[in-house]
Formats: sequence, C-alpha cells, structure tokens
Amino acid sequence: MTMAKELKELTSQDENYSQWYQDLVVKADLAENSAVRGCMVIKPYGYAIWEKMQRILDDKFKETGHHNAYFPLLIPKSFLSREADHVEGFAKECAVVTHYRLKNDPEGSGVIVDPAARLEEELIIRPTSETIIWNTYKNWIQSYRDLPLLINQWANVMRWEMRTRLFLRTAEFLWQEGHTAHATREEAEVEARKMQNVYADFAENYMAMPVIKGVKTESERFAGAVDTYTIEAMMQDGKALQAGTSHFLGQNFGKAFDVTFIDKEGKTDYAWATSWGVSTRLIGALIMSHSDNNGLVLPPHLAPIQVVIVPIYRSAGQLAQISEKVDKIITGLKASGISVIYDDRDTKKPGWKFAEYELKGVPVRLAMGGRDLENNTIEVMRRDTLEKETVTCEGIEAHVKNLLEEIQRNIFRKALEHREKHTVKVDTYDQFKEKLEEGNFILAHWDGTPETEERIKNETKATIRCIPFDDATPGQCMVTGKPSAQRVLFARAY
Amino acid sequence: MTMAKELKELTSQDENYSQWYQDLVVKADLAENSAVRGCMVIKPYGYAIWEKMQRILDDKFKETGHHNAYFPLLIPKSFLSREADHVEGFAKECAVVTHYRLKNDPEGSGVIVDPAARLEEELIIRPTSETIIWNTYKNWIQSYRDLPLLINQWANVMRWEMRTRLFLRTAEFLWQEGHTAHATREEAEVEARKMQNVYADFAENYMAMPVIKGVKTESERFAGAVDTYTIEAMMQDGKALQAGTSHFLGQNFGKAFDVTFIDKEGKTDYAWATSWGVSTRLIGALIMSHSDNNGLVLPPHLAPIQVVIVPIYRSAGQLAQISEKVDKIITGLKASGISVIYDDRDTKKPGWKFAEYELKGVPVRLAMGGRDLENNTIEVMRRDTLEKETVTCEGIEAHVKNLLEEIQRNIFRKALEHREKHTVKVDTYDQFKEKLEEGNFILAHWDGTPETEERIKNETKATIRCIPFDDATPGQCMVTGKPSAQRVLFARAY
Repeated sequence: MTMAKELKELTSQDENYSQWYQDLVVKADLAENSAVRGCMVIKPYGYAIWEKMQRILDDKFKETGHHNAYFPLLIPKSFLSREADHVEGFAKECAVVTHYRLKNDPEGSGVIVDPAARLEEELIIRPTSETIIWNTYKNWIQSYRDLPLLINQWANVMRWEMRTRLFLRTAEFLWQEGHTAHATREEAEVEARKMQNVYADFAENYMAMPVIKGVKTESERFAGAVDTYTIEAMMQDGKALQAGTSHFLGQNFGKAFDVTFIDKEGKTDYAWATSWGVSTRLIGALIMSHSDNNGLVLPPHLAPIQVVIVPIYRSAGQLAQISEKVDKIITGLKASGISVIYDDRDTKKPGWKFAEYELKGVPVRLAMGGRDLENNTIEVMRRDTLEKETVTCEGIEAHVKNLLEEIQRNIFRKALEHREKHTVKVDTYDQFKEKLEEGNFILAHWDGTPETEERIKNETKATIRCIPFDDATPGQCMVTGKPSAQRVLFARAY
Repeated sequence: MTMAKELKELTSQDENYSQWYQDLVVKADLAENSAVRGCMVIKPYGYAIWEKMQRILDDKFKETGHHNAYFPLLIPKSFLSREADHVEGFAKECAVVTHYRLKNDPEGSGVIVDPAARLEEELIIRPTSETIIWNTYKNWIQSYRDLPLLINQWANVMRWEMRTRLFLRTAEFLWQEGHTAHATREEAEVEARKMQNVYADFAENYMAMPVIKGVKTESERFAGAVDTYTIEAMMQDGKALQAGTSHFLGQNFGKAFDVTFIDKEGKTDYAWATSWGVSTRLIGALIMSHSDNNGLVLPPHLAPIQVVIVPIYRSAGQLAQISEKVDKIITGLKASGISVIYDDRDTKKPGWKFAEYELKGVPVRLAMGGRDLENNTIEVMRRDTLEKETVTCEGIEAHVKNLLEEIQRNIFRKALEHREKHTVKVDTYDQFKEKLEEGNFILAHWDGTPETEERIKNETKATIRCIPFDDATPGQCMVTGKPSAQRVLFARAY
C-alpha cells in the first residue's frame, strides 16, 4: 500500500458522514482518542488551529475591555448546590476528586488510593466556573465603582459525557469562559448580546461559517441563565451545531453567592451577571462547514499553513534552480504576512505531497517544475475548488494574497448558499417531518410551550435551536394551532 | 484611613521578608488564595505578567522547532506506576478522581457523590505529563523518520502540597511542559541543554534575573530523570529559587511505555527522552528579584504597563490642555511599541495614583502639571531608583524608550551585584554554617555522596542547588575531607 493511497482512504461523505468526520480528524492529524475515556489528545496540527482561534478571539475580548485571569480547576462540591438550576444541569456529569494521595499497594506492585487521605469535602473538576468565580467576586465587588468587572479565562473543563466524539463532545475540552458583573440589568444584557456578536463576527469572518443569531427557549437555556443567546451554524449534513453561547444570568449567581454592591444612590443591590464561552468544539464546526472527500478545507484566516510550495524536479541541479526561485517567493509571501512552507523533502513524491496537503486543507498549493523554470511561471492550486492555473512568477505574492481572500469569501458564500438552500419555512407538522428528514433547517411556528417543544423533540429528534432575532411575524403553532409570536428555528443538532 | 496610606501598608522587607512577599502579591493585585485549599486565583494584573511570559517563551520554543499540543488532564493511576522513580516522586501528592457523578442527597438539600458512579480505575490529575504523553508517543513513533518529536504543552497541573505560598508553591499551577523524543542519547542530551539555555536566556534578558546554570545531584533530580539541568536564582533574602529545569530522561520512559523505533540501520531501539518546564512560580521569582518596600519593581520587558501618565491639574481647562499634549505623547509611545496608560480619573488624587503605580511596579511614570504646560516639559520618574527628572517634551518618546532599556539593564545589574556580593567560597563546615546563616550562596567542596549531602541538609537546611558548569577545580569535601571534583552550589531554597 502506498502512502498516497493510504492518505486517500477517507470514508466518503455520502457513504457515511459521521465516519468521514471521524476519519478526517484522525488522518489529518488534528486529534485522537486517548487512553482516558472521552478525553482527546489534540495533536500539533489541530492545536495550531486552536491557537489561531485563541489569538483572534483574545484580541477581540481585549478590544472590548476584558482582562484574562485564572481561577481554580477544582470546585467545592457544596458550591455547585448554591444555584438550584445550575446543580441540576451539571451534577450528573461531574468528575469528583475524593482523595489527595496514593500509596504503595501492600498486596501488589502498583499504587492504591490512600484511604487515610480522604478529603473532608469532595471537589469537582470544573464543568464551568460560575460558582467558583462568583464566590471570588464576592470579595472583589463592594461598590458600583468596582463594576463592571469584565473577566475572561482560558481553561480546560470537564463534563463526563457518555457518548463522545472528537472535538464535538469530549469529557475534557478547552475553552474560554467570560464572566462579567454589572451594576444594572440593562448593562448586563448589553454585554451578553455584545459577546454574542463578537462570536458571530468570529464565526463568519474567520471561520467563514455563517451563523444564525437568536435566543434559546427556556428548555435549552444554560443551567442558571435567565437568557441564553446563541449562534447556530448548519453543518454540511444539514444538522445544526451550537457554536457559541452568551448568557444573561440575571442576579442568580449574585444572590447564590451573596455578591452585593452599593449603587450610586447608596442602595445595596445584587450584582448582575453574564457568562459566555466557545470551545475546541469550534474545530469540529470548522471541519463540517467546508471540508470534502479529499480532506480538510481550511479558511485562510485560520489555516496554520496558508501556502505550501512543492518543487517538481528531475535532478539535484534542477532542484537547486527551483529552490533559488522559490526562496524569493517565500520571502515575498512572508513579507505579506502569509505563512508558507517549502516541502523539498526527497523522501516523498510530489503526488504524495499533493494528497497530503489537500488532506490537511492548506488553502493554496504552489508547484514549480522544469517547464515553469523555463517560462518563469508557477502552478497555483486552490484547495476550495481544486482549480489549477499557471501564472507568471512576477507579482505572485499579490496574486496569492488576493487568492487567499477570494478563497475565504468563496467558502463562506458556499456555506451560506448551502444553508439557504436547506432552510425552509413549513406550516404543518407533516411537512415539518418530511423536510426535517431531508436534512433541513426549519422555520416554523410554535406555541411557546415546553410541552409542545418536548413532544416535537421526542417525535422527531429536532430541537428548537433558537428564536431568531430577525423575524417577528406572528402565526399559529404547526402542532397545536395555538398562537405563535414568530417562527423559530428547528433542526437536529450535534 | 486614606487609600494612599492603605496602599503603603506593606510589611517592610527587613521586618519580615516572607510577610512582605505575601502582602505584596495580594496588595499589588497579582493573586490571592481561593476557597480551595492551596489553589490560587491569578488576578488580571498577575495573569497579564504570565501572558507576557507565555508569549515570549512560546516564540522561543517555536523558534527552536517545537510545536504545541494538548494531552489529557487525567492520567490512569496504573500509568504512574510504570516508571519506578516517577511514581515514588509523585504518588504522595496526587489529587485522585474516583467518581464521575453526583446525585441529590436523599437526606438533605445538597448533592452527594453517587456511589454507583465509581470509576473502574481511579484517575489522577496530572502532576506532570510524562506518563500520558509517552503512552501516546508509542503510537506516534515507529521509525527514526518520526524523530525527533518536539512537543510542548501549556497546561495546569496539580501537586497536593501541604504548605503552599502564592505563586511559589501551590496545589494547582500553570506551566509549560516540553516533551521530546529522539533517536540518540546525544541528541536528547543536546536538547535538554538547549532548553536550559532557552530558560537562562529568558530569565536574564526578560526577567532581568541572573541565574546559575548547572546540573542537579542525584538526590535533587526529577523523579524519572537521568540528569536534571537547572537554572538557580538568588532571591533578595539570599535564598535560592529553582527557576526552570530541563531533564534528560534517558530511555526510562521509552522503556516504561515501550516506545521503540527502527533506526537507520534497521535496528530497534527505545526512544530517548527529555522534558522541561517553567511555571507561574516564575512570577514569585520576579517579585523577589527586584521589588522593594514601595511595591513591585517589574522589568520593562515583562511589565504589562510600561508607562503611566498622570495629569496634575487645578481646573477642567487645564486638564484639557494637558490631555491634548499627552495625547500626542501617547501616540508616539504606542508607535514605538510601548504600552502606556493615561490615568486622568478625577476620583483619585495624583499622590494616590503615584503610590498605586509604584505598588504595581510600572517602570516609568510621567506627570504633567501647570508649570510643565508653560515650559513644554514633563516629569519622568523611574520606578527602579525612584529618581525624578524634568525633561522637555521634544523627543520624550526616545527618552522613555532608552530609559526603559536602562531600567531593564539596571535591575539586572543590581540583582547580579547582589548575588555576587552574597556568594562565597568556603572550605570548612563551620565557615559554611556561618556564611549560610548570613544568607549567602556557598560554593564548597563535597565528596559526591548522597550521605554527606543529606547530613548537610539535615544539619543546616541547605541543599545542593546544582553542580555549576563553569568550575572544574578539584579539592576536598568540607565535611568528610574526601576528594571532590569541583565546588558545588549550596543554599537554602524556596
């Protein structure tokens, strides 16, 4: 079996989309399952994408006035119970630390938990940090002058999920969690919406992934939130992926952790809260937005390698000539802020390299051979369409720079067209079931009750992804015929 | 009590150095103890220093060919036992996860650990990641072509320390851990030494903290290492702080996790390993290298805020005039890559602000008042010496830029002079005890046995910090009179 063949052995999307995804994550060297159930190893190439995401998001958080900080990994069990909905939402999937020491096994060669080292109170590995953070904020907030408090944390969290999938749902994942405190309800609501917009901007302009902004229904809200704002994206198989959420928490955590402040009029009130987060799950969303049967398609704004150059040569002398020309191109590309690698390894054939960089989703591939040398040209292949063209080396830097932007726009446009094509308005429940089965996003009227929502979920596996912001036309619930304030977005979801 | 007075209420260094440190960490808003024993909250100002450290170190790691990745937080208990010294070193301070679910307490209002959700095998929160990483490397390494494997991870780790101190020794801390695999012993040894040099360069040129490079004795080695290379710094109280270590691990983990590869000759061998790390402990080292009774003294290369500008005004009109001039200065400073803030808050007096920015260690303070307006001048205060001068606004940007570099050099020089003044060579054990008590680093001959090392430690609390590289003059052990290959470095340590 040749390497090139092995690289191509992706399950095709049509055959089994889920298996295609799983294959691709592993074969493109993004991540793999670890020895610990549900926990993944994020490999260098996957982590490089996460680093790019982090850098961009972190800059956006700082531009909007936030500062990073770090809070403990472990949370006293009792903290979780302070907010009733919150404990209900997270208690069932908590990793619990009960002991703080191992000792030699008197009956074997290994180590055992030392029963003498039992903690007085068990500690939970954070599934999210509202409780430990608001317990800390109690000491940081006394007056309206201490507000707003705009903090973000980059961290690992753990939720003991039973069914896990690389990036999409893992027991441990990496994320950022913003936790802000405000003097007024209005200010906290503005903050929650502002961060939803930051996420939407990131999704659309960096991930090239169009999103629908809206608010969650009560049943789909974050445990402890008054309102959960979400951005929802359509994957290539028509399923929805919740790509980021921003919560208006009201005074729930202020009350649970007794965080009060003296306002301008001298009155005492509980602080108002928001929290918001995105995670390594975004890498899964990225993959399922653009990639194909040849491998990853990465948006240029997030690709760790934007351009690869492959020499095609028959002799060492020819390679030297190519390398000399390529060197100048590399210098020019780097000067334009483009990340580029030159793969002149003599252990792999050009065809193998082409397949590898297609698999890895490098947006632009340049190749230079003997004829190019003669003609002062270079072959340019764009990963999104797999189209090739031969262009002159003069001005290649500007050509590539424009092409990268064109690819970024094109894959966004393609994803948007796909979503628009697969988004339908329906008015009857039968039509709903039919269109859902075809893999669509469905805009339908709903009577606003958790009961109807639950019934639809049980009967069709579709959930209300959000109540979109951009629609306010009333109608009648497709299931019960009762009045509906506006259409809501239904889909099956990751 | 005025705020300005409160800010000044640091314990003085002479009175109680340890309390001064503790006070300063809290009052300068770097970190505080959390509700979880031994775990700290790193506050935004402290975290901003860590972010600067991370960015610089990460660039250095990448320049030396390393890639970041991420491995699971949890390690199966049995992995720890695979390497005998390693388990011996870490088993006694492990946080152990035994359950994965909580449930409602049938007899109370809170939640309890669900006894039905007990893990088959307990999981340890990583105290360091050699075991989980080498278990992963087994699948990544087959041939010499897969080597070297140069990986780094930024992560949190946990060691259940009994006596903790903010930054210096905490149950949870943030760090980076490099884990590399190589085809030959020589290459791994070169890597371990290379990373020691990267750390030394960072310590001296960014932290302005002179370090002594050397190798640890057997008793002080990392659990599982063949050799531990270290950089040791002297704190202001004469105690040593181990600021970074780089380990040559031989084939210990290759063997423990059966990581073999086919070499160029077609023979199978175990992979050779290194690991190396620095942690948030460096922030403690930074504080105890330069700060004083007025607060932090931060090296300009790591200060989150390099310059603060304070207006001194009698009227809104005067403030407007000052702000107009300051705006131009800010633009100029920012264009030079200098981070600057303008504190024109009307809720605090200039004196309060001066004290606050001294406490926070901002390297340069500029102040502009009515007379400065008339004369086109500005007052410049440097934090390291507290010296003030009034200079003309023309060319202030270049002046400040040079001053920042001068401060960086000056605090390094001062720390180096301090260390040199307090480093002595002694030849008798009596002299050793006397000089140690005075707070010195001591270079003395030692017979090379763990017994003598242990005796000295028990009798004086001094440990061998390292066997320095730059000395090879033989002599006789100060305790036993037996032959000694070279002087080694003794000190009491953090």
